[in-house]
Amino acid sequence: MERILNLETKKFSGKKVKVCGWVNSLRHHGGIVFLDLRDRSGILQVVSEPKLAEGIKEEYALEIEGEIKKRPIKMINPELETGEIELKAKKIKILAKAQPLPFDLKELKLSLPKLLDYRPLTLRNEKIKAIFKIQEKLISSFRKVIKDLGFSEFQAPTIVPVATEGGAEVFHIDYFDKDAYLAQSPQLYKQILVGAFERVFCVTHAYRAEPSCTTRHLTEYTGLDAEMGFIDSWEDLMDTCEIVIRNIFSDIEKNCQKELKMFGETLPKLGQKIPRLKMREIQEIIYQRTGRDNRKKPDLEPDDEKEICQFAKEKYNSELIFITHYPTKKRPFYTFPDPKDPEYTLSFDLLCRGLEIVTGGQRIHEYEKLVKNIKKLFSHKIKDFEFYLQAFKYGMPPEGGFCLGAERIVKQILELENIRQASLFPRDMERIDQRLSLLQPPKKAEKNDKRN
Amino acid sequence: MERILNLETKKFSGKKVKVCGWVNSLRHHGGIVFLDLRDRSGILQVVSEPKLAEGIKEEYALEIEGEIKKRPIKMINPELETGEIELKAKKIKILAKAQPLPFDLKELKLSLPKLLDYRPLTLRNEKIKAIFKIQEKLISSFRKVIKDLGFSEFQAPTIVPVATEGGAEVFHIDYFDKDAYLAQSPQLYKQILVGAFERVFCVTHAYRAEPSCTTRHLTEYTGLDAEMGFIDSWEDLMDTCEIVIRNIFSDIEKNCQKELKMFGETLPKLGQKIPRLKMREIQEIIYQRTGRDNRKKPDLEPDDEKEICQFAKEKYNSELIFITHYPTKKRPFYTFPDPKDPEYTLSFDLLCRGLEIVTGGQRIHEYEKLVKNIKKLFSHKIKDFEFYLQAFKYGMPPEGGFCLGAERIVKQILELENIRQASLFPRDMERIDQRLSLLQPPKKAEKNDKRN
Repeated sequence: MERILNLETKKFSGKKVKVCGWVNSLRHHGGIVFLDLRDRSGILQVVSEPKLAEGIKEEYALEIEGEIKKRPIKMINPELETGEIELKAKKIKILAKAQPLPFDLKELKLSLPKLLDYRPLTLRNEKIKAIFKIQEKLISSFRKVIKDLGFSEFQAPTIVPVATEGGAEVFHIDYFDKDAYLAQSPQLYKQILVGAFERVFCVTHAYRAEPSCTTRHLTEYTGLDAEMGFIDSWEDLMDTCEIVIRNIFSDIEKNCQKELKMFGETLPKLGQKIPRLKMREIQEIIYQRTGRDNRKKPDLEPDDEKEICQFAKEKYNSELIFITHYPTKKRPFYTFPDPKDPEYTLSFDLLCRGLEIVTGGQRIHEYEKLVKNIKKLFSHKIKDFEFYLQAFKYGMPPEGGFCLGAERIVKQILELENIRQASLFPRDMERIDQRLSLLQPPKKAEKNDKRN
Repeated sequence: MERILNLETKKFSGKKVKVCGWVNSLRHHGGIVFLDLRDRSGILQVVSEPKLAEGIKEEYALEIEGEIKKRPIKMINPELETGEIELKAKKIKILAKAQPLPFDLKELKLSLPKLLDYRPLTLRNEKIKAIFKIQEKLISSFRKVIKDLGFSEFQAPTIVPVATEGGAEVFHIDYFDKDAYLAQSPQLYKQILVGAFERVFCVTHAYRAEPSCTTRHLTEYTGLDAEMGFIDSWEDLMDTCEIVIRNIFSDIEKNCQKELKMFGETLPKLGQKIPRLKMREIQEIIYQRTGRDNRKKPDLEPDDEKEICQFAKEKYNSELIFITHYPTKKRPFYTFPDPKDPEYTLSFDLLCRGLEIVTGGQRIHEYEKLVKNIKKLFSHKIKDFEFYLQAFKYGMPPEGGFCLGAERIVKQILELENIRQASLFPRDMERIDQRLSLLQPPKKAEKNDKRN
């Protein structure tokens, strides 16, 4: 007999079936054993004689043959998709045993470090799986909407020859007898590809050697990157970004109701149009609202980011807001300065519920300007950029793009406390799967000196 | 006026339009300038007075306004999708200039190293772009067919704490004051996730510190990975793999005719069913056919791989063949030994036109057996594997999977000579974009010693 999925059994009332899955829970009740079997489609109640289920414990992997029966009316469980039926077991085969669980897997009450220490096990919890269902949907929606807009998908390399976006927060790789680095973003490559494909996107991993443990940084994260040429104005980029976000949110809303419900969440409100304000205007608003005077600071503080999102919600009914015109000094070398005020850039961040989830902007597309900037910022190490510069030497139209942080968006949609909850296998300075302090002895002093 | 794409102009005969693109070619003919404008949709012929086109050269990025006209019948170009019309230019705006091209971009006659030195430029060539159109289609088809089979997509981490698949060919990362490595594959993670999601897949980058420069290895490549639980037999894996390959090939055949034509290629033949033979049987066949006696060798030589594909084509009308039962000694620790003959494994490679394009097999799912194997092969360093082992400690059904090499498949479909041609930005021991010898001075002797 061929195995069918738990969810499919609904159509097999009165028929013999074979199902497979894990024991989600198990209870003896009178002379009967009730067993909830979990597979990738959902949960099915199995009823068995005690003898058949002898020795079986939670998380055992089973193959069960039996007959699908309608439940007595008062036994119907409306919470369960298969709640009107149950499987009367005739034969139970143990595919794999499980050791006793170290905690209750259904009602997880663990600290975050413990939750991550036990990631392979805690990922079996339905509420935790829901996080990654939403992540999967987010990424597939991104691909769909951006393809519909004429973008081509590409594979971005992640081993790079030079640290192009600031040297401090980059991971060094021993590359045979040379040096290489982990890409902080696919930025230079997506720009190069605009020269060939005009509109490109990628879903890629980016790496930041963040030397601190905040609730919003990972050392390896998933970037949803897009870049487009022949823009009329840098506002095209925000328009495109807004289309992308609206489509993703509506897709998640349509397809992930069950998952959202588990967290008691609805998608962030977007209003009629996501408001767009300059950083300096925002600092003024913060000052008016709170008395905090950060009006001369080169960036927003985390508290300011929360405050301005509150403002946007109150004034525009939008839980998202574009912040534009960051200072030129604080943005990477390729950022396009505002011709009207070159101290500020045609760049933007998109905040959602108090956290940056997208960053983007127009790029310098003129070869000579780019060369000049690189010479100024990288003390004339123009040779490192020759490959990248080819794209601009041979005709690059006005262009720009943006990058969505996948884990951050999921965090904000579900209002998770920590970004680590939104990563299957989060990496930070203290953990790669297991805590590093448990895996590796401290290095000797002479091994600690870093290469230049 | 809003810009439209070149391909859309067909519907605008007699109307005014605005288009954007690069100058693909330019010729003066009598008192007229003919200019082929290239955008992401294709090529459009533009006709202009010499004055309007003054100073314009190849690869300039332009914005052109004018009127779409039907071409005179004898000027129709059936090779071009827009061959029945042309644009009479009224206004030409230069968006970006290009320096003189170092070679003819339309008829590329460069050695492979030169082709890659100039990658940002050579990617603009139509035939080279076609390679990556096929790569894009391959990957999106993989996602589609595998999702339809009930697999969930996940993001595989690429920074890993230990080198689990052989220490020699792994890249070391300076991870703060600890050691980390680049993942040689997402193997352990996809297995862990079978415990939670049952069927998973990912499109990820994998890294091999291959210390040689062959035509079939890259240090960073794109793996299309799948893993599934609750298999009845390891043959389920080959069946699933065959469904995936058939769907991908048929999708590429349907959607990439233009691209295949440029290379004079058709998809590899698959016959009725892809043949499945044991490695030892194949060595015997090779011996019978060629007299080469490799019957005691633990693996196939590249020449044997070509020969056996020739055999499969002759005998089964299939340019692909599954090779099964590789020796246990030559496969990783998690590979499932054949219960009938534990010297050999329930593993397989899929060859296409003489090259391995897929590798897969059943995995050991029993906790105790896995622990025993790790202790034997990694001299009791069981602590390094504790995280991974959790998935097996708490109930893992029989499972297995496979991985498709994206660049290799594209190479074999188009019969490219070198795998580097099938990677946008290929990495090997001598090159990361630019040749490393040009970028970095040789290291001093004392810097050459490797960490353990």
